[in-house]
Amino acid sequence: MLSKSQINLFKSLQHKKFRTEHGLFLVEGRKSINEFINSAYQVDTVYQTYTTDPKLLNLSHKINSQQISLNDLEKISGLKTPQDAVALVKIPVWPALSTDILKKSFSILLDAVQDPGNLGTIIRTADWFGIGNIICSEDTVDVYNPKVVQATMGSLARVKVHYVNIEAFLRNNTLPVYGALLNGQSIYNTNFGTEGLIVMGNEGNGVRPAVEKLITKAITIPRAGQAESLNVGIATAIFCSEIKRNTFK
Amino acid sequence: MLSKSQINLFKSLQHKKFRTEHGLFLVEGRKSINEFINSAYQVDTVYQTYTTDPKLLNLSHKINSQQISLNDLEKISGLKTPQDAVALVKIPVWPALSTDILKKSFSILLDAVQDPGNLGTIIRTADWFGIGNIICSEDTVDVYNPKVVQATMGSLARVKVHYVNIEAFLRNNTLPVYGALLNGQSIYNTNFGTEGLIVMGNEGNGVRPAVEKLITKAITIPRAGQAESLNVGIATAIFCSEIKRNTFK
Repeated sequence: MLSKSQINLFKSLQHKKFRTEHGLFLVEGRKSINEFINSAYQVDTVYQTYTTDPKLLNLSHKINSQQISLNDLEKISGLKTPQDAVALVKIPVWPALSTDILKKSFSILLDAVQDPGNLGTIIRTADWFGIGNIICSEDTVDVYNPKVVQATMGSLARVKVHYVNIEAFLRNNTLPVYGALLNGQSIYNTNFGTEGLIVMGNEGNGVRPAVEKLITKAITIPRAGQAESLNVGIATAIFCSEIKRNTFK
Repeated sequence: MLSKSQINLFKSLQHKKFRTEHGLFLVEGRKSINEFINSAYQVDTVYQTYTTDPKLLNLSHKINSQQISLNDLEKISGLKTPQDAVALVKIPVWPALSTDILKKSFSILLDAVQDPGNLGTIIRTADWFGIGNIICSEDTVDVYNPKVVQATMGSLARVKVHYVNIEAFLRNNTLPVYGALLNGQSIYNTNFGTEGLIVMGNEGNGVRPAVEKLITKAITIPRAGQAESLNVGIATAIFCSEIKRNTFK
């Protein structure tokens, strides 16, 4: 049985302040936990219900494991319908971001994206298209927010997410900076080449003017119908698809 | 002030059973309500807070309007952060779906999509790309679910969503049937022509075998990375973009 203080730890990790304090975040579900075990992340402890077959989780001796009741799982899970396991995973400290590691590849740059589901879906989509780095403005939603982690479906274990002052970062950058803007050139007539950054803006306000100034190529997804805008996750996916489509032909 | 029975009506409309019984659904926020007012839908009553400038809503004499307190708005809204207005809109009865109205265009066919956010985003994306009809299996999430309506950002006012027995529908159909499947031909090497149906499957299970048999062209979005799958809203958007990209060049 879990102690009250253990349960309180899990509850506190729903909030960024306590995730930072403890250096931990939650991953739910055996499938996602497995992805973190087989990654550069350090899984601290896995809590699984008695009904989970322990063999299904590739637990090495380095990872603590505790069997808990379904009742306890419900107490520590942030989900309406808890899955079979919850893990405490250490928040990693990635090497400082340099543009050198971004050369000969594409990276996504998010300016104040707020919705956890959007960030999670963007990470999952990036992973599908082999994009390894996402660079977020400091006011983008926290990637270790449980809703973000959940929406990545395990892809967070593979895609590195960096938080930086994006204006300072872009000023010191030599890669082409493509930005999703209105009245830019059609994405379908754009040759993206082999490297660059793709700037996507906030759900309601788009890219901030100060960031927009640092974009070298304004790109637009043409509209055939009447919707006022596209969801930022959808727009990002269309950029990823267009960037990669020639490599698949 | 709203009566208890009025408040109960709003609460009941969070559930499909009562939406069907009353023939009504909820639309929240002035911006979305305006889209429904300027559409084929019949807006029954608009409830707006005192702080809303009534001139901002294009209310004709045909539409009932009631000013309510912020306190009442909070009671009838299904949102955590209520907007400025809530409207009761009549559930329309569209003419029976015939493949004739789908000719010389593309339509999206959803096989048991369950997540309200996904259906809403698909409707919004369809609206952006000028796709006017979405055909859903009878077990797809209800389009008048408030979370779906919200996620469409007003696009539901323009995109017709039909519920049919999709196996029976596909058996009587003469349009090309493209399906998002694994191991199909690359979407980037596919010439979609000028008309067709695009079948997208359930979030966890994909397209059902019985429906898959009725697909004439299996299409795959190639993967460069390691994510196991793409979100169905994301995959649908990439199909929409590929179908329309030549018309934009």
